[in-house]
Amino acid sequence: MSILIENGLIVTNDDAGTRLDPGGVLIEEDRIAWVGPMDAAPEAARLPEVETIDARRSIVMPGLVNAHMHSNECFEQGAYDNLPLELWLIQSYPPFGMPRLSEREHYLRTMICAMESIRSGVTTVQDDLLHIQVTPEAVDGAAKAYDDAGLRAVITVAMWDRPFLDCMPYLRNIVPADLAAELDALPLATAEAQISLFERHHRRWQGHGGLLKIIPAPSGPQRCSDDLLRAAAELSARYDLPVHTHVLESKVQAVTGHDFYGKTLVEHLDDVGMLTPRFTMNHAIWLTEHDIELLGDRNCSITHNPLSNMKLGSGVCPVRRLQESGVNVALGTDGTATSDTADLIEAFRAASMLHKIGGHDFEQWISAEEAFRMATLGGARSTGMRDQIGSLETGKKADVILLDRDAWGFIPLNDPIRQLAFSVTSECVRSSIIGGRVVMRDRVVISLDEAALKAEVAEAAERFRRDHFPKMQAGAKRIEPYVRQVYERCTGLKLELAHDPHRMPPRQN
Amino acid sequence: MSILIENGLIVTNDDAGTRLDPGGVLIEEDRIAWVGPMDAAPEAARLPEVETIDARRSIVMPGLVNAHMHSNECFEQGAYDNLPLELWLIQSYPPFGMPRLSEREHYLRTMICAMESIRSGVTTVQDDLLHIQVTPEAVDGAAKAYDDAGLRAVITVAMWDRPFLDCMPYLRNIVPADLAAELDALPLATAEAQISLFERHHRRWQGHGGLLKIIPAPSGPQRCSDDLLRAAAELSARYDLPVHTHVLESKVQAVTGHDFYGKTLVEHLDDVGMLTPRFTMNHAIWLTEHDIELLGDRNCSITHNPLSNMKLGSGVCPVRRLQESGVNVALGTDGTATSDTADLIEAFRAASMLHKIGGHDFEQWISAEEAFRMATLGGARSTGMRDQIGSLETGKKADVILLDRDAWGFIPLNDPIRQLAFSVTSECVRSSIIGGRVVMRDRVVISLDEAALKAEVAEAAERFRRDHFPKMQAGAKRIEPYVRQVYERCTGLKLELAHDPHRMPPRQN
Repeated sequence: MSILIENGLIVTNDDAGTRLDPGGVLIEEDRIAWVGPMDAAPEAARLPEVETIDARRSIVMPGLVNAHMHSNECFEQGAYDNLPLELWLIQSYPPFGMPRLSEREHYLRTMICAMESIRSGVTTVQDDLLHIQVTPEAVDGAAKAYDDAGLRAVITVAMWDRPFLDCMPYLRNIVPADLAAELDALPLATAEAQISLFERHHRRWQGHGGLLKIIPAPSGPQRCSDDLLRAAAELSARYDLPVHTHVLESKVQAVTGHDFYGKTLVEHLDDVGMLTPRFTMNHAIWLTEHDIELLGDRNCSITHNPLSNMKLGSGVCPVRRLQESGVNVALGTDGTATSDTADLIEAFRAASMLHKIGGHDFEQWISAEEAFRMATLGGARSTGMRDQIGSLETGKKADVILLDRDAWGFIPLNDPIRQLAFSVTSECVRSSIIGGRVVMRDRVVISLDEAALKAEVAEAAERFRRDHFPKMQAGAKRIEPYVRQVYERCTGLKLELAHDPHRMPPRQN
Repeated sequence: MSILIENGLIVTNDDAGTRLDPGGVLIEEDRIAWVGPMDAAPEAARLPEVETIDARRSIVMPGLVNAHMHSNECFEQGAYDNLPLELWLIQSYPPFGMPRLSEREHYLRTMICAMESIRSGVTTVQDDLLHIQVTPEAVDGAAKAYDDAGLRAVITVAMWDRPFLDCMPYLRNIVPADLAAELDALPLATAEAQISLFERHHRRWQGHGGLLKIIPAPSGPQRCSDDLLRAAAELSARYDLPVHTHVLESKVQAVTGHDFYGKTLVEHLDDVGMLTPRFTMNHAIWLTEHDIELLGDRNCSITHNPLSNMKLGSGVCPVRRLQESGVNVALGTDGTATSDTADLIEAFRAASMLHKIGGHDFEQWISAEEAFRMATLGGARSTGMRDQIGSLETGKKADVILLDRDAWGFIPLNDPIRQLAFSVTSECVRSSIIGGRVVMRDRVVISLDEAALKAEVAEAAERFRRDHFPKMQAGAKRIEPYVRQVYERCTGLKLELAHDPHRMPPRQN
C-alpha cells in the first residue's frame, strides 16, 4: 500500500528545519519512502496504484508524541479541581473503594484517550497505565484499544510494592492504629509477581501490529522497594526499553527523599542504577542543582506536563536549565483527571506560554519552536524511537498529520508552528496517518465505528460515574485528614532547591 | 420570532447556580422569555409558530463575553514570539511603516476575530480597536463586520495624543536627535479631533441592530494628556458608557507612573476622575497595595488576560487579591498578535489553571467555576450590561450557546464547567444564538456566507502579510535599540509592589 501526499506545506521538523511548499511525502507500507519538493517527486510516486491525498490546503507535519498520560483516568475528566497532588491522588487512586473493572471496561476507558489523542494530532502515546489491582486486564484492554484505534502506543506496566502508609513521610505516625491496620491489610502484589506480569505483557504485546511497546514503570521511587527498582532497571537494560518514573512532582516528594533516604529521590535513583539514557523522569520540578547535573550527566529524559502541573499547583519545571544540563525534554498532557485532557496541542500551547512569565530576560524564554520539538522529537527520544518518529524523513515511520490551512487561526499563514501553538485548536487537525494507515480523514476517525463505540463508551463511563465514583470518594474521605496533615507539614518546610518552583512568595495579608 | 430550546442540560449561571436537566429556554424576539424545567414549560412554548431546537444531547449555557481583545491585530496571528510588551508593541504598532487600510480591509480583518469568536462560544466581544491613524474607517469597518456576523460588540474608540517619544520613560533622552525629529514630525490627531471622532462614531453606531455599543478608550494614561483623559471620563459619565484603559501591564509601565507623575498610574487615573464603576483597567499586574485598594474602593473592573500576559512575559495578575478588594474581574483573550487567538475558551482554561501554581494554599486557588464567572458575568459587568447578558435568566438578552454533550471530553459528564475549562476545546460549541438570532448551527456560521467571506479575508490577509508587514518590521527596526534600552533600564529597577508579578527570582548561573 502506497500513499502520496501531494502539494502540501511540509513541515519536516528535521534538524535543518526544512519546509517545503509545495512538497510531497511518499509512503510505502508503514514508512516514509520520500519527502521533497513536488517537482522532484520520484517515479514511484506516479505509479497508478499509489493513492494520492491532495494537500494543497493542508499543512503536513509529523504526528505529535504525548510522552506522558494516564488513560486509566478517563472516566474522571472534570471530576476534580483545586486539589494539590497528594490530596488529588487519594481521590483518583484511593486505597479503599477502587473498582476492579473488566477488560472491556479498561478497553472502553482507554478509547476515550485514544480518540482524543487521534483527534488532536497525536500519533504516539506513552500511556502510564496506573492500575492498582496489578491484574492483566488493564494492559490487555488498553493494548487492544490502541490496536483497534490504530494508534502507536508505549504502554507502561506500573509497579509499586510498598504499603500505602510507607509511601509518604510522617503518614504512618499520623494515621490511627485501627485505620493503619486496615490499610496494611490491603492486598499488595509482590515485586516478583509484578515483574512476572511485566514479562507476560511484554511477551504478548511487544511489537504487536507494529505499533505497540511494553515498558516498565515503577510508579515513584518512594512507592517501590530498592529491589523492585533494580529489577525494573534490569528489565530496561535487558530488553533495551525505556523506563519511566514519577519523581519530584511535588514538594512532598522532595521531602520524601530526605526523610526516606537522606538524599534526594534523584540521587537515590542513581544509586540503584536507574539513571541511564533509557530513563524518563516525569515532572522533574522540585530539583536541586545536583539533581539537574545528575540527570544531564546520565543523559536522561524528563516529561514536562505544564497543564497538569498548573492544575495541581505543583509548580513549574525548570525546562531551560534542564536542557542546558543536557536533559532531553519531552511533552505530556499527564492524566485525564489532572490536566484533564489528552489533547497535546493544549499542552503544547501551555508549554509555549508558561515559561515566559518567569523573568524579564526574554532571550531565555521557551519559544513555540522549542516546545514543538519537545512535542515531537523530545517525545520520540523518551519512547526510545528517536530514529523512527518525530519528523518527516525518509526511512522513518509514516506518522503524519494534515492540518487545515484554511482554519481561521491560520489566516494569514505567518508561521505554522506558532499558529499551532497559539492560534488554533485541535479542530484544525483534519487527517492522521499512523504507520502508513489512514486513521482519521477530514475529522472522522475511520479506524473504527466511532458512533457505535462512543455509545458503548458513554454507557460504561456513566456507569462508572454513578456506581464506582462515589465509593472512591468515600474511600478517599477516610484518609483525607491524615494526608492533609502530611501535606501541611511538608509544604511548611524550607528546602534548598535550584529554583523557586512556586514562583511566588507566600501570600501576604 | 420565537425559539424553544428543549430538553437540554441548562447551566443558567444565575446567582444560585441553577442547573436544569432536562430544561428549556424560551426566546421571544431578542430576549429570554422563560427558563425552567421542561415539565414546567409555559403555554407560549407550545405554540405552533415556535421553532424548536432539540437540546437532548446539548449543554445549554450563556454565551461567553470576551472583555478585552484587539481585532485589528488579526492579520498578525503567529507573527511574534518571545518578545516582551514594549518590544512587541513597536513591531505590531510601529510609529514608522504602519499601513493605512481601506474600510473593507478593516472589515475583513475584524471578520477573522468575529468568526473565531462565534466559533468559540463568544456572543459579546469588547473590541479595543487600536487604530493609529485615527480615521473613521477602522470603526466603520469593524462595526459593519460585527453587524453582518450578528455578534454583540462593544467597540472602543482608542485615544492617545502624546508624541511617541513621550509615552515611555527615558526614551526621549536616548533616541538620537535626527530620529527624534522624525518621530516628532509624525502626524498626531489632537485631543479635540479624537473626541469629535468619538462623537461621530457614537452617533452613527450606538445601539445599531440592537448589538453595537461605542465606548471611549484612552489607550494608556501615559499616552494621553490629562485633558484627553478628563474628556474621556466626561464622555463616559455623560453617555453612561464604560471606559477602558491599559494600565500596569508591564514593569516599564509601573516605572512610567513614578517617572511621569511621581505616583502610580492608578493614582494618576484617580486624580483625573477616571476611577468609577464604569472604569475597566486592562491587565492590572504591576500593582501596589494602594492601587488594589483604590480599584476596589472605586468599584472598578479589570480585564484579566492570562494568555497574553504569559506570552509577553508580563507577569501574573493578582486576581484573588483584586477580588477580595471588591474589584470585578472580567476575562479577555487580548489581541490576536499577543495571545494570539480570539478563542475565549483558551483564556478560560488558562485562567482556571495559572493561578494554582503560585502557592501551597489550595483554598486560595482560582477554580474553574470562578473563572467561568469572569468569562460571563464579569465581562457583562465590564461592558455595562450586567443586567442584560452573562446568564440565562428571564428578561435578559437571548445570547445562548449549545455545546455537544457527546464530545469525547464530556464523557462522562462529571461537571460541565470544569470540563469546558479543562477537557474540551471550542470545537464542542455547536450552535450559537445572539440576541435571539441563530448565528451558528452545528458548527456552520449561518449569519453570512462563510466560504465566500473566507476567500476574500484570506486574500486580504495574505496581501497584508506580503506587502505591509515587512514595512512595519523595517519601521520597528529603526527604534528597537532605543526601546530595548528603556526596557532594560526599567526592568532592572526595584519596585515596591503588592505581590511578585514575575513569581520567580532572577535566574542563577
